[in-house]
Amino acid sequence: MLTNFKIVLVETSHPGNIGAVARAMKNMQMYPLRLVQPKFFPHADATSRASGADDILKNAAVYTNLPEAIADCQIVLGASARDRTISWPAVTARQCAEKWASPIDPSLNIAIVFGRENSGLKNHELDLCDYLLRIPCNSEYSSLNIAAAVQVVCYELFVATHQEQSNPKVGDHDQAPLASSAQMEAFYQHLQETITDIGFLHPERAKSIMRRLRRIYNRTQLDTKELDILRGILRFSQNHNAE
Amino acid sequence: MLTNFKIVLVETSHPGNIGAVARAMKNMQMYPLRLVQPKFFPHADATSRASGADDILKNAAVYTNLPEAIADCQIVLGASARDRTISWPAVTARQCAEKWASPIDPSLNIAIVFGRENSGLKNHELDLCDYLLRIPCNSEYSSLNIAAAVQVVCYELFVATHQEQSNPKVGDHDQAPLASSAQMEAFYQHLQETITDIGFLHPERAKSIMRRLRRIYNRTQLDTKELDILRGILRFSQNHNAE
Repeated sequence: MLTNFKIVLVETSHPGNIGAVARAMKNMQMYPLRLVQPKFFPHADATSRASGADDILKNAAVYTNLPEAIADCQIVLGASARDRTISWPAVTARQCAEKWASPIDPSLNIAIVFGRENSGLKNHELDLCDYLLRIPCNSEYSSLNIAAAVQVVCYELFVATHQEQSNPKVGDHDQAPLASSAQMEAFYQHLQETITDIGFLHPERAKSIMRRLRRIYNRTQLDTKELDILRGILRFSQNHNAE
Repeated sequence: MLTNFKIVLVETSHPGNIGAVARAMKNMQMYPLRLVQPKFFPHADATSRASGADDILKNAAVYTNLPEAIADCQIVLGASARDRTISWPAVTARQCAEKWASPIDPSLNIAIVFGRENSGLKNHELDLCDYLLRIPCNSEYSSLNIAAAVQVVCYELFVATHQEQSNPKVGDHDQAPLASSAQMEAFYQHLQETITDIGFLHPERAKSIMRRLRRIYNRTQLDTKELDILRGILRFSQNHNAE
């Protein structure tokens, strides 16, 4: 059973899709399911399409917003079919599986976030993501049903974890645990305050600058020790200004 | 467009599943769909779940029996979740893609046959198959929804035929050129001056702290635009201190 990958669905409209996602997850031994503001849940359509994966539905946690749903995750991937004007770093479903599921690092919590059926994830939600997750597909008809997308991703994770190789992970940068999403949010808050204090961040540019800074530090995958150093710098910078 | 793989559904009960199969196929550029005695077809549920893959539904051919539906195929694979007492030769979805889709032999017609939602393929139908096609999955809960199974198989075929295009470079993050080593050195110099000025960096810790900061920013692979932002922050931080 794979429990460090959290499947997160944001504002799913059709409860049948939630059930189909639960079935897809159970087929591939994935737990748990997290729901952010589902339109209808629990619902008979969800139960019916889950087709026996009731345990996944029963244990699904419901959240009021995405930051809460991913607070304990060090790595956050946002599934996206669309090309974005600002290009986030991207991995394919297979690269994701090779990178994080083969072998699994039991200390990592990884959120895989799927957006609304019609409109996917919003930019402010993608800002919380370290990577875009792409499923290679027909570029002229690229929107997979949400349960189909979950099926492909979970399938790749299952295949990767059931290969018989257990290579130690190379290129890991430190022993300290990776910073969680909540810790990163606190850092961004602190960073924004500081660069506002020193006069660098003007309100009208704040959004785009902060988005760029998020992209830098999200893809860096800071560990907690490194985060302490960066926050130390911010603290000194603020105190110095206050003198 | 992949046309030598024929997706064949045998006696599908739920027309919604036929629509979902059409969508899964179109997402992965697979044609055509062949139906053996579908319970209801055409049907509004099929059209609705096809979600724009109407061309696949419209061109779906309906047959009265499996031998007719696969008559022009040299290779026939039967999707099966169950273990069979008589062991057929089996391939996984990935092996199938590697074997027949990479590269494609244009002279081959390959049928991939999916059975009934509840009971799969009968033995006399499997007798027509050259191979069982398996999707690796949870052995305790192995029955995938039929459209989910088609999605995984078509996805594997798509990936195998699009290998070069389907892997974005991991961490490909922006169009701006990556910062040169000289630019990074100038940045580290500037960073060290600044955090010394604000009182964060004590001489006796300078070496180890700067080493840690280098590791963070080196692995981030900053582009020149991002470097400008970070140096802008340092500049403001210094000017502010100098006031």
